Amino acid sequence: MQVGLVAHKFMGNKEKTIQKTLDLIEKVAKNGAQLVILQELHQNYYFCQNESVECFDLANSWEDDKVFWGKVAKKFGIVLVTSLFEKRTAGLYHNTAVVFEKDGKIVGIYRKMHIPDDPQFYEKFYFTPGDLGFEPIDTSVGRLGVLVCWDQWYPEAARLMALKGAEILIYPTAIGWFDGDEKDEKSRQLEAWVAVQRGHSVANGIPVIAVNRIGFEPQNISEFEKCKKTKNPKENGIRFWGNSFVFGSQGEQIFRANDTDELAQVVTIDMQRCENVRRWWPFLRDRRIEAYENLTKRFID
Amino acid sequence: MQVGLVAHKFMGNKEKTIQKTLDLIEKVAKNGAQLVILQELHQNYYFCQNESVECFDLANSWEDDKVFWGKVAKKFGIVLVTSLFEKRTAGLYHNTAVVFEKDGKIVGIYRKMHIPDDPQFYEKFYFTPGDLGFEPIDTSVGRLGVLVCWDQWYPEAARLMALKGAEILIYPTAIGWFDGDEKDEKSRQLEAWVAVQRGHSVANGIPVIAVNRIGFEPQNISEFEKCKKTKNPKENGIRFWGNSFVFGSQGEQIFRANDTDELAQVVTIDMQRCENVRRWWPFLRDRRIEAYENLTKRFID
Repeated sequence: MQVGLVAHKFMGNKEKTIQKTLDLIEKVAKNGAQLVILQELHQNYYFCQNESVECFDLANSWEDDKVFWGKVAKKFGIVLVTSLFEKRTAGLYHNTAVVFEKDGKIVGIYRKMHIPDDPQFYEKFYFTPGDLGFEPIDTSVGRLGVLVCWDQWYPEAARLMALKGAEILIYPTAIGWFDGDEKDEKSRQLEAWVAVQRGHSVANGIPVIAVNRIGFEPQNISEFEKCKKTKNPKENGIRFWGNSFVFGSQGEQIFRANDTDELAQVVTIDMQRCENVRRWWPFLRDRRIEAYENLTKRFID
Repeated sequence: MQVGLVAHKFMGNKEKTIQKTLDLIEKVAKNGAQLVILQELHQNYYFCQNESVECFDLANSWEDDKVFWGKVAKKFGIVLVTSLFEKRTAGLYHNTAVVFEKDGKIVGIYRKMHIPDDPQFYEKFYFTPGDLGFEPIDTSVGRLGVLVCWDQWYPEAARLMALKGAEILIYPTAIGWFDGDEKDEKSRQLEAWVAVQRGHSVANGIPVIAVNRIGFEPQNISEFEKCKKTKNPKENGIRFWGNSFVFGSQGEQIFRANDTDELAQVVTIDMQRCENVRRWWPFLRDRRIEAYENLTKRFID
């Protein structure tokens, strides 16, 4: 399968940001992408750096957004994995991946199940944890195990998708560094993020894709244009670390991006390889399910 | 904590092999090791390359072996993680890690829960899957999450140990290459093995140690001395790939061995780091336990 990975910086406002996304989707579609994956909350800046009730306005376009991205999927004839801000009703919002078929129809949604809450990643303020569980989405290019960002740290999420027949794991992501951290610490964070997801690939014998945001976004987004003009802005903010990647069914690295450049990459994934890898390493055969019930406990005191 | 990793080739018979192990334990103990970890089934050759009822004789010394290694732990004043062939009764055997305190007393055993069965790794013939579950072992150097080899591919095992308060994961291991495989395939296998365990470290915020066998052992062990004389023996066999490693609580690499040299390495592990790492990345806080019950299913059809 040909997969298109699309990621780029926030462009200053929603219109410009979406236009850039469309340009890059067109590029990967022309290069043969059948499935295209976008970064987390790709329509705008990463608003979760602050707790601000005004930001709920960003979800007001939820119904229109779904119509819009359906048209994009149809126009380019691609299966499209988007990451949108869902307004379910007043005061009830989700961080939701919406998956569109080549004909533009929605084939499934996934509401982010694990919600982080760190300084400048105040997602618990915005997003109610998903209530749809870990359900793969069937598409014309395969059964997609779509998860979102923080989910990527949880082996349980990956395993549950695999046990429901997901053929690939997909993580739209928004993760980055604080400029004030030491270089070593930044390296440990990035490599840990790669390592845990590579582990999901190995443990489940399926490919894993993460598409992460890129570029610096100040906590005070009104300072964005000013920050753009300097390489080392003094503002508080997140430097999204890019490094989008693809690992194959045996955990082998197929692609890894750098931490700065916009991404419009088509990657070939051998979807038949899972069958061979799982025959060689039949981990699913030997799970001790009768000894796993404590996995549903918070902790065992 | 100072941890001693000890691994070496099979030395031709049990006596010589144990003597080599003792020499290396002495070395790491003198260099300050408080906890020493040995490779899987370290007393002898890896007999699971064949299904042979005669090999059950190797478990006849089980009671004596426990006494012997207890004396070793006491002599050197170390907590010692051994990997022995347990004879529980006639026709009932386990692949069992026995952990000794500094005073030589047994503080706990772990019976390998996940049992592999591949060509030349015929462990299901020899070992009944463990019936003690995933229980950490309390020692004077900390609560040890001792698992064995094939367990290392299972995120469930690592998580359950962490949920019971294990402060470190430890995997005595016997894994290697077949010489006939391509170089690329060998590399994928080795890196997958490292990656999945590194993932456990990240997902659980605790250090992970694997100590793996080294060297070529022919399937027909009577050919061992002949094979020793040539660099590229034509015999069927397993080339144990070494590469013993230590990852810290954030998945950072602290130590990694090569694939050939005997190992008597003391590694310093910061056991307090877990506390910090888990405060920064509080994965345990956000587990969706109410959505995990399917982890106890074989597959969800």
